[in-house]
Amino acid sequence: LPGKGRAAGLDSSHTALCLPQDLLLAAAFVSDAQYNRNIPFKTSPEAVRLYHLYNHWMMRIATYFFIFLNLSLALFEEPAVYPLPFLATSVLEVLCLLVFLGRLTHFAKVTLHNVFWKDTKNICIMVAILLSLTDLAIYGVLRMYDVRSIRWSRIVRPIFLINFAESRQIRRAFRSIRNTLPEITYVFLLFMFSLLMFSLMALKLFGERNLQTAEGLPYFRNYLEIVFDLYVLVTTANSPDVMMPAFDFSSWYTLFFIAFVIINTYIFMSLFLAVVYNNYKKHLKNEIRKLAYMKRRKMIEAFNLLKEEEGEQFVVREARWKQLVKLVAPDTSSSHRELLLCISDDEQKGFVDKKSFVQLADLLNIQVVTLRVRRHPLARWVPALYGSAPSQLLRRVVRHRAFVWTYDAIILINAIFIALDEESPYISYAEWVFLSLYIIEILLKVYTYEPREFFGWKFVWSLVSTVLTLKYNSQQILDIVFILRVLRLIRIVDSIQRFQVIMNTLINIVPTMLTFGGLTLVVYCVFAIIGMELFHGKIQYFPANSNAPHALECGNPALKDSLFARGKYCKNNFNNFASSFIVLMELTVVNQWHDILSVQPAKLYFIAFHIVMVIIIVNIFVSFILEAFFVEYSLEKSEVETAIERKIQELGMGVQEDELQYEQLLDNMESAEHELEGEGGTKPQSKGLVFKIASKRYRTVDALLQRMFEAEIPLEDEGLSFEEILNLSPTSAVPRSPSSESTA
Amino acid sequence: LPGKGRAAGLDSSHTALCLPQDLLLAAAFVSDAQYNRNIPFKTSPEAVRLYHLYNHWMMRIATYFFIFLNLSLALFEEPAVYPLPFLATSVLEVLCLLVFLGRLTHFAKVTLHNVFWKDTKNICIMVAILLSLTDLAIYGVLRMYDVRSIRWSRIVRPIFLINFAESRQIRRAFRSIRNTLPEITYVFLLFMFSLLMFSLMALKLFGERNLQTAEGLPYFRNYLEIVFDLYVLVTTANSPDVMMPAFDFSSWYTLFFIAFVIINTYIFMSLFLAVVYNNYKKHLKNEIRKLAYMKRRKMIEAFNLLKEEEGEQFVVREARWKQLVKLVAPDTSSSHRELLLCISDDEQKGFVDKKSFVQLADLLNIQVVTLRVRRHPLARWVPALYGSAPSQLLRRVVRHRAFVWTYDAIILINAIFIALDEESPYISYAEWVFLSLYIIEILLKVYTYEPREFFGWKFVWSLVSTVLTLKYNSQQILDIVFILRVLRLIRIVDSIQRFQVIMNTLINIVPTMLTFGGLTLVVYCVFAIIGMELFHGKIQYFPANSNAPHALECGNPALKDSLFARGKYCKNNFNNFASSFIVLMELTVVNQWHDILSVQPAKLYFIAFHIVMVIIIVNIFVSFILEAFFVEYSLEKSEVETAIERKIQELGMGVQEDELQYEQLLDNMESAEHELEGEGGTKPQSKGLVFKIASKRYRTVDALLQRMFEAEIPLEDEGLSFEEILNLSPTSAVPRSPSSESTA
Repeated sequence: LPGKGRAAGLDSSHTALCLPQDLLLAAAFVSDAQYNRNIPFKTSPEAVRLYHLYNHWMMRIATYFFIFLNLSLALFEEPAVYPLPFLATSVLEVLCLLVFLGRLTHFAKVTLHNVFWKDTKNICIMVAILLSLTDLAIYGVLRMYDVRSIRWSRIVRPIFLINFAESRQIRRAFRSIRNTLPEITYVFLLFMFSLLMFSLMALKLFGERNLQTAEGLPYFRNYLEIVFDLYVLVTTANSPDVMMPAFDFSSWYTLFFIAFVIINTYIFMSLFLAVVYNNYKKHLKNEIRKLAYMKRRKMIEAFNLLKEEEGEQFVVREARWKQLVKLVAPDTSSSHRELLLCISDDEQKGFVDKKSFVQLADLLNIQVVTLRVRRHPLARWVPALYGSAPSQLLRRVVRHRAFVWTYDAIILINAIFIALDEESPYISYAEWVFLSLYIIEILLKVYTYEPREFFGWKFVWSLVSTVLTLKYNSQQILDIVFILRVLRLIRIVDSIQRFQVIMNTLINIVPTMLTFGGLTLVVYCVFAIIGMELFHGKIQYFPANSNAPHALECGNPALKDSLFARGKYCKNNFNNFASSFIVLMELTVVNQWHDILSVQPAKLYFIAFHIVMVIIIVNIFVSFILEAFFVEYSLEKSEVETAIERKIQELGMGVQEDELQYEQLLDNMESAEHELEGEGGTKPQSKGLVFKIASKRYRTVDALLQRMFEAEIPLEDEGLSFEEILNLSPTSAVPRSPSSESTA
Repeated sequence: LPGKGRAAGLDSSHTALCLPQDLLLAAAFVSDAQYNRNIPFKTSPEAVRLYHLYNHWMMRIATYFFIFLNLSLALFEEPAVYPLPFLATSVLEVLCLLVFLGRLTHFAKVTLHNVFWKDTKNICIMVAILLSLTDLAIYGVLRMYDVRSIRWSRIVRPIFLINFAESRQIRRAFRSIRNTLPEITYVFLLFMFSLLMFSLMALKLFGERNLQTAEGLPYFRNYLEIVFDLYVLVTTANSPDVMMPAFDFSSWYTLFFIAFVIINTYIFMSLFLAVVYNNYKKHLKNEIRKLAYMKRRKMIEAFNLLKEEEGEQFVVREARWKQLVKLVAPDTSSSHRELLLCISDDEQKGFVDKKSFVQLADLLNIQVVTLRVRRHPLARWVPALYGSAPSQLLRRVVRHRAFVWTYDAIILINAIFIALDEESPYISYAEWVFLSLYIIEILLKVYTYEPREFFGWKFVWSLVSTVLTLKYNSQQILDIVFILRVLRLIRIVDSIQRFQVIMNTLINIVPTMLTFGGLTLVVYCVFAIIGMELFHGKIQYFPANSNAPHALECGNPALKDSLFARGKYCKNNFNNFASSFIVLMELTVVNQWHDILSVQPAKLYFIAFHIVMVIIIVNIFVSFILEAFFVEYSLEKSEVETAIERKIQELGMGVQEDELQYEQLLDNMESAEHELEGEGGTKPQSKGLVFKIASKRYRTVDALLQRMFEAEIPLEDEGLSFEEILNLSPTSAVPRSPSSESTA
């Protein structure tokens, strides 16, 4: 029966009769294309309805909430930051697991059975749930009998973050790592070979000279210790300490260390970056190309479901098109829909052809803001006063660039005053002057600009901060508020053309940073949990004036006179989840990591962390930033303006926001208002609605890349079939529909 | 008159009469094309002869010798590593300056006057010579009257290394840096903005909490000190120390540092790399393209000088072609010349056409080794014994792969023995066993292979090391020799296909490393000389058991209890040129640099060094390695085999060495010998000479890139004129010759 509903889409004779399930199915396809989802769902009406529910934003947010709740349980379990009874955490964990199970069941109902069971993601989740429950039960029973055991299943918790269908980005990053691993391994083997060779030489050169380190320990006597010391030198963390005894003995020995650093730190570490970057680029392009093809494919599927014959070609009729858009994007206003139709059917023929239909997903992705031209409330309430010559002059002054510049200068002076930070009463007095200047600025702006449209959060923020400052009269809050004000200076930087590429790169990488955040979270969680099991309680932190024994040695007599204790590193321990995270962050930064861990027999733990985090993940992050910059840079040169944007521009309904400064946009609106008042509004803007095209910033690097690839696919191209796209990877393929062959 | 000589080349009627100066001029053009020289020399016969002398390898080596002598004078001048009297160093310096002046005069005679005086390189050298002499005179006079002054002109010495025509690569690197500077500056300004903002926040967050560092100093009180501390944190050198007081106060404060590290260390530092890499790539491609066009242009100039009419086309006749080759490459054997002619005139028409002529420069660049098939000396002296069955079996065993593998295994075991390094007598005994095994290996190889051709250095080295070991019976030498033997294991690594790209990259970057060495030398020299003037004598090094006052505080009471003294860093000082270099190396590695310099009011010095060395030069080095890897990687995929190599292969005279292992090549030669003995030598190899094509390794990245670009230039293309190539940069343009218009 579900197959019948699909097949109906092929039948070109049923022009009038369109089943609602076809529409629902098409909506699912379009929505998937819009958000780049690749879930192979069943096409039966119930499954499609379930699929719509599955993709509902509430469901997805709930899933994420429980994933993070599950991860953050480590904060409340022994060793806890905020201790909760075992019963409470285990009830919470069971709740989370039930939610995951429910979500998975929902997914199973949506997707085909054989696809579901072939997908390792789902198997992983099931195994993880099972493991967690078993471990929880065993631990609970043992606890009742007062037997201490390990909650080893906590390591599997990050699996939920990776394997739910929502975490496509993180999974992609992991795939990228997996693909890079073989080549990294080869470089790593070479690197280890070089390290072992240098260690051998070091042993022979320095081992028999009876040298001592600054701490009076024997220097370079034991082969394995040399290997470790030189590994640390590769990370530069113990430079120049590791060199000093040999250097003191003879200056010529520094040549050994110079050669070592050049070969291992500079050449090999760069080679790691080169390998990671090369694979990242290759892999990224491949994935993005796949996404672009998948999107095209889905739009064609949707088109085939809804198409009707019209003369020589197949088309989608206006009414059905509108129904579809209403289903896919229920929140859009009807005027917005009219605009979309206007673009899709620009000759107003009453139908949308295939070429235009395929672009719907991109059209829906274009941010549209209703820029209704409103008059200032005061202009309505007291038009005479507001329109008077002094008032107009005042407004013109406020709108002038010099006004903005004046306030930029004031902020700069304010920043300097904060930095001076003298205790003198004049400066404290000055800060009140600055505060009143800021209040005057806000008042003037409220007077000049229509507040509702543009001032939303900015206005509220200004108000809240001012009120806070006035109410608590706290220097601290005042200062922080002022510092945040100084961030306004970024706008000056941004207005200079040469800073634009850099700023765009910085802004565009923010969304993808979340992926790296997720990746880092997974790695940190695993290492933190292992670290807590291995090193918990070995080091204690005591406040500065504590009288506890060995307070200065972090509660560990073995640390007496160590660099660790002398550096007051006691708080760098694995005693709870939060501390572990901070220690791992310090290890990521790399410096002093050998000191941080000198007390624990933990060299392997730290080398493992260094390889995973620094050599692989940080390098992928650097690769990502390099690529983001290059994409941004090449886009700046050759404007990739797709057909859609050009069309919007042709219709004269777009506001290209790129070059427009915030204030300039406001000015535009104001001038439009003037014209309205003056000439009676003949411009298309007078409709009260313009397309605001998502500017080049706020686009992710992926989106930019995807557009570059889409520009490569000819518009008439059907694209490959799903199977071809996925290179016979059956786990995420949509069931092959017969319709894809019949269309051409 | 010189113009007349040139113009004669145009006159197509003078077929028989070729002036020797034309030949000399053409030889100069071809030689310039071969070595990628771009010196705009005069075309008069005397100038051309002087130009040949100017390019003589003796002259160039002498110039480099005096440049490095001049630079190394800093070792002998106050503060000296090896003190020499002032008179000696100043005489040496004057000698160097005279040599430079002579070289420059020679250059002035070779090149056109207006070109010479427009070239900033030459002006720079003249100014530097003048400054050095003036400073030397002033210093000498003041010294006579016992007035202490500064030898400030020592800073200009690296100018000679950069500005002599020979240092094209270093100059190119400097040009690359100059081109990158504007964009780097923008990123740097943004970075400084971010740094200043974070410092402001840090001041407000921590400044009023009365926190203390581990050393008991006030924590984050002064704005400028915060800026410096956070700058150090960007280099990760004081992580986590700078965070600990705040962390001890409240764990939440770590969020500030995490945000700081992510934004400044990870994002901004990657952005620096991105900008440098992007510019490096752009600039490199542009330069290489220019070089490729220049080379084409020069070959066409040479062709136009020598061409004669032959039917429809212009050609160079065989006799003249041979004269030319003899002039350009006087060391080639006549059989080698015959081979080159064979390739250039492959249909044996008695002349070389334009297309083939243009390839001459590349042909000359192809390494040709005379692989004369020789019989083993023993085979000549005692043929019966050497050809006997046991002897043949022995030789077959030695030639077998298993023999090599056996010795690889022995070396591996030897390496493990060295690493164990027990004092037990058995191991010492074992080492003698290993030594005798190695001697047996050498003897067997000498018996099997013809020693002269392939064993040159390897054989001598084996012998020398064995003799050394036996004679001195020193454990030390024995060990070092054995370790160097272990390097043979690299060959195993290299034979694995997957390691090839990595190894090729590593090998190919070696020549260009010299450029970076030069660049580093220049920066180090300047900073070392400044550092010595600023910080000389502030820190003293005393041997471990010295009784001098303040020996533990490096002779500086202010250093009592400092990390510097505790880490025994006393030898890290600016007391002489060599020490300064080592300190600068440590600063390049970045770790602990704030400690190394904490004693001197030298923050600006070190920030300047960090920006120049780490942010710019190290990033260019990393870019270079990235690009080298990518070029290597793309070449591995799509073999860029140029027309020349294909032609050589067609003629069956090439030995493609790429895949050939050293031993395999030997085996080939041996088998050729067998065939000779058996069948009487019918193969082309029997000429006793084969082309050994320079394999993919041992090519510089530049050469690889240049070949990629040359493949893009159509063979018939005349290329742009010199002026067009150089984008109207008059300083290095060859005078436009009338011949370039008349040819087409």
